[in-house]
Amino acid sequence: MKRVMILGSDGYIGWALSKSLSFAGISVLGIDNYSRRKLVAEVGGLSVIPIQSSRQREKLLRENGYDFSFVEGDLTDYLFLHDEIKKFKPDTIFHLGQQPSAPYSMRGVREAVFTQSNNIITTLNLIHAVQFLDSNISIVKIATAGEWGTPNIPISEGWMEIEYKGKKDTVPFPKQPGSFYHCAKVFDSINIELACKIWGLNVTNVYQGVVFGNNINPRRIGSDTIFDSLEGAETRLDVDECFGTVIHRFCAQAIINHPITVYGSGGQKRGFLPLRDSVQCLTLLGNNPAKGYRIVNQFAEIYSINQLAITVLEVLKGMGQRVPRITNFNNPRVEKEEHEYEVEREILKQLGYTPSISLKDEIRNILEDLVEHRKLIFVLKESSLLSPVTKWKKGNL
Amino acid sequence: MKRVMILGSDGYIGWALSKSLSFAGISVLGIDNYSRRKLVAEVGGLSVIPIQSSRQREKLLRENGYDFSFVEGDLTDYLFLHDEIKKFKPDTIFHLGQQPSAPYSMRGVREAVFTQSNNIITTLNLIHAVQFLDSNISIVKIATAGEWGTPNIPISEGWMEIEYKGKKDTVPFPKQPGSFYHCAKVFDSINIELACKIWGLNVTNVYQGVVFGNNINPRRIGSDTIFDSLEGAETRLDVDECFGTVIHRFCAQAIINHPITVYGSGGQKRGFLPLRDSVQCLTLLGNNPAKGYRIVNQFAEIYSINQLAITVLEVLKGMGQRVPRITNFNNPRVEKEEHEYEVEREILKQLGYTPSISLKDEIRNILEDLVEHRKLIFVLKESSLLSPVTKWKKGNL
Repeated sequence: MKRVMILGSDGYIGWALSKSLSFAGISVLGIDNYSRRKLVAEVGGLSVIPIQSSRQREKLLRENGYDFSFVEGDLTDYLFLHDEIKKFKPDTIFHLGQQPSAPYSMRGVREAVFTQSNNIITTLNLIHAVQFLDSNISIVKIATAGEWGTPNIPISEGWMEIEYKGKKDTVPFPKQPGSFYHCAKVFDSINIELACKIWGLNVTNVYQGVVFGNNINPRRIGSDTIFDSLEGAETRLDVDECFGTVIHRFCAQAIINHPITVYGSGGQKRGFLPLRDSVQCLTLLGNNPAKGYRIVNQFAEIYSINQLAITVLEVLKGMGQRVPRITNFNNPRVEKEEHEYEVEREILKQLGYTPSISLKDEIRNILEDLVEHRKLIFVLKESSLLSPVTKWKKGNL
Repeated sequence: MKRVMILGSDGYIGWALSKSLSFAGISVLGIDNYSRRKLVAEVGGLSVIPIQSSRQREKLLRENGYDFSFVEGDLTDYLFLHDEIKKFKPDTIFHLGQQPSAPYSMRGVREAVFTQSNNIITTLNLIHAVQFLDSNISIVKIATAGEWGTPNIPISEGWMEIEYKGKKDTVPFPKQPGSFYHCAKVFDSINIELACKIWGLNVTNVYQGVVFGNNINPRRIGSDTIFDSLEGAETRLDVDECFGTVIHRFCAQAIINHPITVYGSGGQKRGFLPLRDSVQCLTLLGNNPAKGYRIVNQFAEIYSINQLAITVLEVLKGMGQRVPRITNFNNPRVEKEEHEYEVEREILKQLGYTPSISLKDEIRNILEDLVEHRKLIFVLKESSLLSPVTKWKKGNL
């Protein structure tokens, strides 16, 4: 990779990837319409790690000698995206420019429509532009492991050879998304697979687990880094019920001695990976582009929600802090609470991905970062955003 | 069914169903934004069987004593749809209000975006409105058999029990759509299945084959009907490369002695059913509503494209007309041209569906109807719309 476009460069992973690739000497163009900031503000949330504007971020990186540029724009505007690709001539485009919250998509018809139309249109625009301008551009798109749901059979990397009623075939692995957001990710994946088939595009579709943590380089535990000390370059961290993912929510709750809100029995299992590993994997995939359509399962380890809750409390105790209780909330989602979860991960292993830090150590990093931002977490608590508000069972209007 | 809403009542099947249910004494409310008329006009096509406006159609049915009303409106406007359902209080809603052409969706990014966003938003609005207003309303939604693609294994009615890597599960039957239109249908199906799961909606999702013909009641061959003699109540018939389906295109070509344009080798197999059977099946499904989510495969018979071409020419010859040659066009689509095609159809069989007319007889009806509209077919020929214009391989912008 020499010239990289990052769609959604102002988001949680988008910004982490933008700075990491810039630090590596790559010429990076970030594009964003501040959608994540606006949506988090809309639900009453905020990043509990304070962040700079995209313009400030651009200035900071450029002043420190990195080749990062930022353009504000909406990816649902085809001509805008087309022109930016035509001008910048990227070899690789990372597509992270989407509405990323499952609960947000379940708040009501307006949010479901926004999530699905916004996400699908950005991807349709991207694949049309690339096939028209230069189908050699490699695309790396963030999908979600949630597309697979929680079947009883082992989850493959995209396809499975089966026998059914006496005949054999290799067919797409079944998808069983559990929210309108997850559905939208499935839709993108289906559109992208078609585009690869009919136009010969080269796309890596990253079925990513839940990303957690705020650092892109080792810190405290083995610290050969300088970059996280670039003050003001931090990426966002959300802990509200809509945009905060489970480990972040639990850490924020733990820090202010709020009960840990496990949804249902807590037996739900998912794949998780630290932010630094997400950046490491995406970089590996960008450096080893797909020929045609490639599906990659990307996460470090599988945990149950109960394991996460217990680990957060153990780490907190080790820090000498007061430990809150765990409460089992009436599950706001519709999902299996006890299930199989076996997932094939061969591609990233072959490319050399090795998890960089243990769950406990990265949770300790998060908790230590959050200590100084207790006041911001209290703001969310006052807005009742640390416990589930959005319910799957009954959509609102 | 006593009070029925038909979304997309101005379209090819929508209008046929609207009049058929009205004739059966049902109170019918049709909703449409004339999208089909506008899209056909946009590509330069026209219905080669002249049709009246929706207002004229409403007047005609009401003057003949039938309880049919028409409201013009856009289903992507949530509040409009919500209010119409709230006022009319239907027991059943047929959802046919979508962009229905695969080639149209492949013309370029504008058409792909329109097709997918329009179709998805209409369905999201419908399921949100029904769950909010009255989740007892039964929904019958037109999906397409094209969602399944052409796998090597027999196509089930929705799910399949499989063993994979030593474990067993019942999973959704794989979907392999071949155009952005077919993708949009898959997306709707996935959203609807989720809505049934989380909200307890009752939806029949009709995986319909290719519908052909223009009559909703028997005619000539056993004529116990009066209704098709209701002059001015004809439904549309498109024969252009975008909105005309294969049998209609072949019949139109045959009538003006234009070469029959078989795409590729012509070994492609699909399920087909006459319009009258589509109306019969939809009525059966409306009268026997789903409990939860039900997938139904709906067609009369499987034919290869070559079989259709040969049958059209045989019937034409029998009518004493001059017979054109068959040409094998460089396939504008990306699809298998020789493949297995075995499809399970248990539900409609159990409900009592029996095909009402042979392929030959219905093709003869179409050809006889088209004879008097030769001039309109020549208009399309002059616009080069009888041969493939839209190509899958390279999207236009």
